Amino acid sequence: MPTVTVTRLLRFNAAHRVHNPALSDAENAALFGKCNNPHWHGHNYTLEVSVRGPIDARTGYVMDLGKLRDAVERTVVDLVDHRNVNVEVEFMRDVNPTTENLVVGMWRQIEPALPEEVRLVRLKLWETENNYVEYDGA
Amino acid sequence: MPTVTVTRLLRFNAAHRVHNPALSDAENAALFGKCNNPHWHGHNYTLEVSVRGPIDARTGYVMDLGKLRDAVERTVVDLVDHRNVNVEVEFMRDVNPTTENLVVGMWRQIEPALPEEVRLVRLKLWETENNYVEYDGA
Amino acid sequence: MPTVTVTRLLRFNAAHRVHNPALSDAENAALFGKCNNPHWHGHNYTLEVSVRGPIDARTGYVMDLGKLRDAVERTVVDLVDHRNVNVEVEFMRDVNPTTENLVVGMWRQIEPALPEEVRLVRLKLWETENNYVEYDGA
Amino acid sequence: MPTVTVTRLLRFNAAHRVHNPALSDAENAALFGKCNNPHWHGHNYTLEVSVRGPIDARTGYVMDLGKLRDAVERTVVDLVDHRNVNVEVEFMRDVNPTTENLVVGMWRQIEPALPEEVRLVRLKLWETENNYVEYDGA
Amino acid sequence: MPTVTVTRLLRFNAAHRVHNPALSDAENAALFGKCNNPHWHGHNYTLEVSVRGPIDARTGYVMDLGKLRDAVERTVVDLVDHRNVNVEVEFMRDVNPTTENLVVGMWRQIEPALPEEVRLVRLKLWETENNYVEYDGA
Amino acid sequence: MPTVTVTRLLRFNAAHRVHNPALSDAENAALFGKCNNPHWHGHNYTLEVSVRGPIDARTGYVMDLGKLRDAVERTVVDLVDHRNVNVEVEFMRDVNPTTENLVVGMWRQIEPALPEEVRLVRLKLWETENNYVEYDGA
Repeated sequence: MPTVTVTRLLRFNAAHRVHNPALSDAENAALFGKCNNPHWHGHNYTLEVSVRGPIDARTGYVMDLGKLRDAVERTVVDLVDHRNVNVEVEFMRDVNPTTENLVVGMWRQIEPALPEEVRLVRLKLWETENNYVEYDGA
Repeated sequence: MPTVTVTRLLRFNAAHRVHNPALSDAENAALFGKCNNPHWHGHNYTLEVSVRGPIDARTGYVMDLGKLRDAVERTVVDLVDHRNVNVEVEFMRDVNPTTENLVVGMWRQIEPALPEEVRLVRLKLWETENNYVEYDGA
Repeated sequence: MPTVTVTRLLRFNAAHRVHNPALSDAENAALFGKCNNPHWHGHNYTLEVSVRGPIDARTGYVMDLGKLRDAVERTVVDLVDHRNVNVEVEFMRDVNPTTENLVVGMWRQIEPALPEEVRLVRLKLWETENNYVEYDGA
Repeated sequence: MPTVTVTRLLRFNAAHRVHNPALSDAENAALFGKCNNPHWHGHNYTLEVSVRGPIDARTGYVMDLGKLRDAVERTVVDLVDHRNVNVEVEFMRDVNPTTENLVVGMWRQIEPALPEEVRLVRLKLWETENNYVEYDGA
Repeated sequence: MPTVTVTRLLRFNAAHRVHNPALSDAENAALFGKCNNPHWHGHNYTLEVSVRGPIDARTGYVMDLGKLRDAVERTVVDLVDHRNVNVEVEFMRDVNPTTENLVVGMWRQIEPALPEEVRLVRLKLWETENNYVEYDGA
Repeated sequence: MPTVTVTRLLRFNAAHRVHNPALSDAENAALFGKCNNPHWHGHNYTLEVSVRGPIDARTGYVMDLGKLRDAVERTVVDLVDHRNVNVEVEFMRDVNPTTENLVVGMWRQIEPALPEEVRLVRLKLWETENNYVEYDGA
């Protein structure tokens, strides 16, 4: 059977500040400017989750997208939506919530939740309509 | 000369929580659910600012859009971008920062900053890609 | 209190054919061309539902958007999503499901389901990214 | 029958410079800055054409959107697409091609080409994703 | 000459139901839920067709995009637009029209129609704004 | 540290004509049709610039996106925005400004301006909402 990549988009919004807890406040302010605002700011994020595998002859699916959505909602979206990433998100504890670190944290949440027959091949996380990050597990 | 409406879009992001300071925490939680999260959440907002007036025979403009952008940046965007609306925005002091109240507050900031020859006729404020509010000064 | 218009977007997809049951097949084919295909075609529709009212001093809302979404899902989206509009949608029985007729049918479904304090002022229904219709109850 | 507004979007691209031929080069440069570049610049424009009328009982349409598209292509899009608005567009001869003046010129082209049973009620012309103008014939 | 990938987007709409003709109706209903609705549903699809090759020194093109569009319209879009994929599309005969199977069927239609100097490297097919599949011929 | 790809989008508009200066006017007209219009046409371009590297432990960034934006504005956007690509852009001198050649020219401008710790891995240039090109330096 042909091998195809299928992608589901999910949207959530959250507060954060870019802040490295290992550095002083002055260093953080110098490095991150307004993104370091101690009173927080926030974003509407869009996450594209891509899994790859052979098309199942019985279903015609690589994977049921409803099940993919459920897995990502349970392991990621329900934990970050309408939350403060620095303060409330266990899988980002002590991590500076840049988009880069956030996408890596999400990979570690999603990958173990997927069924064996597919492989997580790409996460693409939009922070604004002008920037996004992609991670492939490397 | 014909009368035309011209619109400039501006984008910003901010943290907030939906919270009426005149109510108890329990009442706020009951009314606003996850939008009342005390640790905040946030959005990428898009604001559409529409002014109406006759086309100026000399310029062919209702109003120079660069000047409109500057006026809105100075009176609104610079005050809310990468900010916490509940805590840091003077024109929203003691106001519950719903999208409805936010758009009214922005109207009061923008209208006095516009030149006489145009009339502010509509603000449209997108909170997410699934909801927006419109205000015409009524 | 200021009066504001708030809008919620909802998305669904459906099959249909443009077909006037009062006309002959030949007349339908001549009038509607490929949109009259007897084997159906379909669309991803986007519906923008706009209600207008004063901002409630207690909530800061014109109307809780979660309640608006629930009302529209119950009276419209649940009845048309993943359905055939000609065959399965009671509120479009014997009606030619053009976008024009569909938006009027939806108005009649939604309006009685809204609370007294708001007024339904506009439905905007996108059939494709190149066309939409607006209805204000006229 | 209910009265509905139907809108068709059309896209084209063109070169132009913002330039008032009644003014000196120095005045134009001072007024319009980089938009006055004598070597031209250009845009991908999107035009939204809205007509209003009762729903026809026979067709279920306010107006056949294919006929609306044809009328706008013939009177506007074919004349401006892949063209220089200042140099090649007869209906903009001696007119400074700001978005304001362009939308008024387009109105004068489209309105006489429409059938009697509909009324042209709005043109909305996007110049970039950050600005648009609306004209209602006023 | 540098090697570049060029992509053309095409849009169409169609009716379908997710249904494996080798299974019973009960099995289909259990597997596919509302997507198996026997009365069909439908979508506005967007197809992104990507070809790769060296830039031609004479034209500056990898391939004339007008010719690419024509090839895809002739081999795919004209066959599926305003159609029922299960019933009317020869290249999907006896195939369950999931997005995965549809993109593979389209690859087999498009690839033989392309000129020798380019290689079809990716099809990306959006079914809704929340999901898409990618196929690279594997 | 994980390796991530980060992307910044930038927008500009410009005039151009597709024209190979090594060919006769008749050959150009035959090859390029309306895109060869001697009076120019233009576009709103969107450029997606992707760089790849390990996440910096101190900043949580692959690269500060503000610095990436500044580098691309200085080496590309400031040179083409509101310009005529055929006439005014030094890095496209004597080059036929197809989207393919434009993206290669931009690569040669951007790559030397990036810091050592990241690698430019992809430029994606949208000419209209219906076509784009991608270049990876090959």
